[in-house]
This record gives sequence, structure tokens and C-alpha cells, in this order.
Amino acid sequence: MSKKIEDFFRSDIDTLNEYKILDSKKMIKLDAMENPFDLNVNFEIKGLSSGSASLNRYPDAECENLRKKLHNKYKLSNKYDLIIGNGSDELIQLLCLAFLKKDNVILCPEPSFSMYKKISQVLGLSFKGVPLLKDFSLDIKLMLIKIEEFNPAIIFLAFPNNPTANLWSKKDIDLIIKKTNGIVVVDEAYGSFSGESFIDEIDNYENLLVMKTVSKIGLAGIRLGYLIGERNIIKNINKLRLPFNINTLSQKISELSIENNNYLEIQTKEIIRLKELLVYKMMNIDKIKVYESKTNFILFKVLSGTANDVFTSLLSEKILIKNMNDTPGLENCLRVTVGSEKENNLFIQSLKNLII
Amino acid sequence: MSKKIEDFFRSDIDTLNEYKILDSKKMIKLDAMENPFDLNVNFEIKGLSSGSASLNRYPDAECENLRKKLHNKYKLSNKYDLIIGNGSDELIQLLCLAFLKKDNVILCPEPSFSMYKKISQVLGLSFKGVPLLKDFSLDIKLMLIKIEEFNPAIIFLAFPNNPTANLWSKKDIDLIIKKTNGIVVVDEAYGSFSGESFIDEIDNYENLLVMKTVSKIGLAGIRLGYLIGERNIIKNINKLRLPFNINTLSQKISELSIENNNYLEIQTKEIIRLKELLVYKMMNIDKIKVYESKTNFILFKVLSGTANDVFTSLLSEKILIKNMNDTPGLENCLRVTVGSEKENNLFIQSLKNLII
Repeated sequence: MSKKIEDFFRSDIDTLNEYKILDSKKMIKLDAMENPFDLNVNFEIKGLSSGSASLNRYPDAECENLRKKLHNKYKLSNKYDLIIGNGSDELIQLLCLAFLKKDNVILCPEPSFSMYKKISQVLGLSFKGVPLLKDFSLDIKLMLIKIEEFNPAIIFLAFPNNPTANLWSKKDIDLIIKKTNGIVVVDEAYGSFSGESFIDEIDNYENLLVMKTVSKIGLAGIRLGYLIGERNIIKNINKLRLPFNINTLSQKISELSIENNNYLEIQTKEIIRLKELLVYKMMNIDKIKVYESKTNFILFKVLSGTANDVFTSLLSEKILIKNMNDTPGLENCLRVTVGSEKENNLFIQSLKNLII
Repeated sequence: MSKKIEDFFRSDIDTLNEYKILDSKKMIKLDAMENPFDLNVNFEIKGLSSGSASLNRYPDAECENLRKKLHNKYKLSNKYDLIIGNGSDELIQLLCLAFLKKDNVILCPEPSFSMYKKISQVLGLSFKGVPLLKDFSLDIKLMLIKIEEFNPAIIFLAFPNNPTANLWSKKDIDLIIKKTNGIVVVDEAYGSFSGESFIDEIDNYENLLVMKTVSKIGLAGIRLGYLIGERNIIKNINKLRLPFNINTLSQKISELSIENNNYLEIQTKEIIRLKELLVYKMMNIDKIKVYESKTNFILFKVLSGTANDVFTSLLSEKILIKNMNDTPGLENCLRVTVGSEKENNLFIQSLKNLII
């Protein structure tokens, strides 16, 4: 690359990194909050070869059918609309693009989902993190002070939070939504596992948006998230969306999964059961501290030795979890996704051998 | 939406429009440069249920297999790499994000593909259009003057051009690539129909990137484009890409289509044959001017009456083409995509009845 070309790149290009994923081939993969149960795609395929999904044609640019089905699923009134994203990541990007304005601030408790910060910064928005309390609950006093101070355009609240796995107080979140002048995005990526939701609250607040994804409940491979909110806010955000952002197959498979969502719900219940079993077994291991989990993953702290060593040792046994040690506030912490019963047992056995 | 929330939106939000697609249900759809031959998806489905595509897992974030296959297909050396996009639109957005810098200019002949301008502007880059000559060829003298004047970070060149359907002079493009300090993106969305490409020229210029898509050759439904160029330039652009931007099924289907690309090539040849037949028939209609086409669509000018009237009359006969009348330089012009033989004949018959 010539010096001349280098000069044209954005000035922070050298400080940015490519998003690197650890190689997970032949690994017991407990790093990414995936549903461990392989989806049988046969029923979708039948739907697809009926002629309704012609791959030679562009997808429905508006995801009309899918949006209708979701509208019905959540029993939304006409006051509300949805926008579909190529995963929640694209929705976060669209939100940041819609609110791209000098001096606009994005505010977020930390640690939380890393993409809020990364996407805000890449688009040139000012990002302000507000530390969680030591038990990972919201520091509501500090949040309200920071809202006053920064007057944020967007507040992202992961409910439950990733990577801490806990559920913040609904009362605290209500206070935040009431206090702020901008919008609040409640990200319910793991909402199916907590059983709690702000969907029923959108009637109470016009500045509340609820974001969901199919990634954690069994369809990570199709990349599909959605954002629900007041029609005019959604309309504005939709102006920044690239047309045809959702391919035909992901649209069809989501539609079919809504019609046949029984088996995903059964799997979710089974994952919750496996999670409780896993938490129980982990709590019986001395020298790790297990945090409460309202999700399909568990955060824990290594009290003897280092998280780095435990992570590396597990890796050498072909067990891939997530090392959180480099995240401020999560020193010596690791995050494990709930896998199948067999995977969880292998993990527990290895962990026991390593820690004790 | 409250006044307060309105204040946080980007200042141009009211001037932006949602991307509106005309309803094409039950229409003869000749508006979007789609391949008219429905893809038989059965062979992909077999590939998918073999267990290699587990929808519960996130897709390969790097599209490793697909990138390797494309690397081989184009016989690229190790000096070059590829980045895969959720359609070319996302690649244009990534390019603009990578070169997002105050005073950076995006330069482009006009009329051309509308998303170059739209995406540049939405991201706050300065867009400069350089008018084509009356026959839609490049005004190379003016292009070189404007390159000198604006020192553009990116020049987008659609080869062949959309919506004019013609192929610009390779010699002119060579001059542009040599002259400019920034990068040149040669967009070969319609390259399969022209038979010409700049792929073999990337060894000659380190500032040349070639962009391609599967949308026009039969796979518009899966949303997949790719950008080929010098490894370090691609690496920088890749830093702006959201991880997991390409879902599992689109990756698999593209891979399978490369392995089994015979039938797509046969269809491309058939579309070119049908295009020539259609051009011939259209040239026999008085009172329209048909422009040369190196693509799978044809631009034509209504010489008697108005393009708006012809467009509306065709629509009432359930034939959807594209009205270009509002595009500066294309007053009274319409654009028709080559359909199946039957669709083309219906279009010709209606057009004849309307024009004569």
C-alpha cells in the first residue's frame, strides 16, 4: 500500500483491530452463547422449495411478512413498528447512524456488550461508560448523575446483561427511562432465559425501544435481530437501513420459526434446566466464585491461580470458553456458555481437575 | 415522538427518505436486473443438511472457505485478499467507513449506481459527481481535471455502468487509475454480461479494487458481494466490518454455486442471447431510442410522449420496469431488465401498442 493511499484512510485506522474469532474447529464450543441443539433444517427447506423463495429474486426489502408475524407475536398496537437487522449488531449501527450528530453521547453501564462501545466509536459518537457496582447491579445514583451530566442521545441497557449474566432492577431501569431525554434501548438478547421483558412497557414510555435476536435461542446462523418501538422513531432509523439487508432464506426461516416456535421454547427450557445444574455443580467447586445467571451463560471468577491459565488449560483439552480477564472490572473472570449435558459435564470435570 | 427525541436525531433526518420498492406482487418483474430463471435450491439443501451448516451456531465470521474458493476461482496471488459483504451495498458502506475523514472526497461519473452517492452522503463524506458525455461514455478530460481538483479518496466506476448499460473505455479507466492518488473501485456487478474485467489488471495497480456480486447472475436472494484487492488495503477495510455479517446459508450457497457454476454460466449466456433479441426488437420500434447494452438490462428513451406515461401504462398491464425520468441526464428514459423469452415478448408487445 502506497503512502498516498495510507493518507486517505480514517485517522484511527491503525488503532482499530480486525474482529478475531478463536479457531473453534473440533472444539467443545462454549464461548458464544449458542444453543447447543443443532437445528433440524428440513422443515424450512420444504417451505423454501415450494416456490415462495426464489433465490434469483431480491429479498423483500421491507421484510413485510416477518414484520407482520412479529407484530402479532408481541401483540403490538399500530403505534409501534419493527425494523429487522442483520443481527443486533446492524441494529446498533443503524441506531448510531440515525443519531449521528456532533456532541451526541451514547451512554452505557460497563462492563456490558462490547459492540455498543465499538460501533459508537467507529462512527465517531462519544461513548460514556458508567461502572456497575461490585455485584454487577446498576449504580443507579451514578447513572442518573451521568444522564444529567451528558444528556445522552441513546442509553443501551442489556437486560439481562452480557457478560455479567445478571438482570438489572426493573425499577432502576424505569427511573433511567423517565430521567433521560433521549432514547433507551433495552437489549433483550438473552430475554428468553430470564423470562422478563420490557415489551409490555413500551406503552408507558415513548422513548423506549426493545431489541431482540434469534441468535441465542437457536438460530445464530441466520443472523437476525429486531428492534421494536414507536412508529416514527423506527421510521427515522429505517431511513439509514440499506435496502435488502435481510436475505430471503433468513426471512423465511424466521417466519417458519415463529409459526413453529414450540421446539425452540422447549429447547430454551431445557437450556435453563442445564444452566441450573451447571451452576449447582460449579458452586461446589472451591476456589471459584460463581455469579448469578439469568442467561444461557455463567460468569465465574478464579480465586486461586489465574483465569488466563485456566482458560489456556481448558483450550488444550479442546474446551473453548471466553476469557474475560482483559475486561475492566472482570479481572480473573471467565464466561462459559451452557452446552449440552455431555459438554457441560466434560467442562465441569476439566475445571475440577484444573482448579482443585 | 417527543420534541426532545427529535432533537437528538441527525440534522438531515427529515431530508432522508426510506428506500421504497414498488409493489411487484403478481407483476412481470423487469425492474431489478434479476436473473429470470428460478434457482433450483435442492442441491444446496442437501449440502446444508449434511451437518456442515448448523444454524444454531454463528456463521464463520471470516467466510474462510468461501474466500478460499473465490481466491482460487480468480487465481489470485497471496498479495491479494477478499472481503465479503451483505451485498455490494455493505461493501460500499465499509469502503466509506474506512475512508471516513474530514475533507475526503468520493468521486463518481454520473449517472451511475445511486448507492455510491447515497451511502457517501449518509456517512458525511463529500460526494462529487462528474457528468458523462451525451452518449454516456466517460468525459475523460473532465474526469482527470476533477481528480486533480478534488484529490478523491475513492473513485467508483461501474463497469459496465448502471443505469446506462454501456461499458466505458478500458484505456480511459487506466488513465484514471494512474492519475488518482486514492483508490479506484471498479464495480463489476454486471461483468458477467460484458465479458470484460479488471481482475487481471490488479497486478498493474496497487490502488485498484474490483467489486463483484452474485445478485445479477442468479443469486440476488442470498445477498452477497465481494471486494478484491491488495491485502493491506483489504485488511484495513475489514477492520470496519461487523463480525458475522454473512449468514451461514448464504456462505454455503455461494460456495456450492462456485463448485457448480456451470448452470449459472449457461443461464448468463442465455440471458445475453435474450438481451440481443430484445434489443433487436426494440430497435424496430419507432419513437424510442435504444442505447447499447453490455448488461442484462436495456436503457431506452421515449421520443414521442413521455416516459412517465409509458411506465404507468406498462404498470397497468402488470409489467414493472424502472422509470429513470427523475435521474438528471436520463430525462424521458426507462430501463428494462431482460426477462424470460415469454416476459420479454409480453413487454415488447405492450410497448409496441403504447408507442406506435
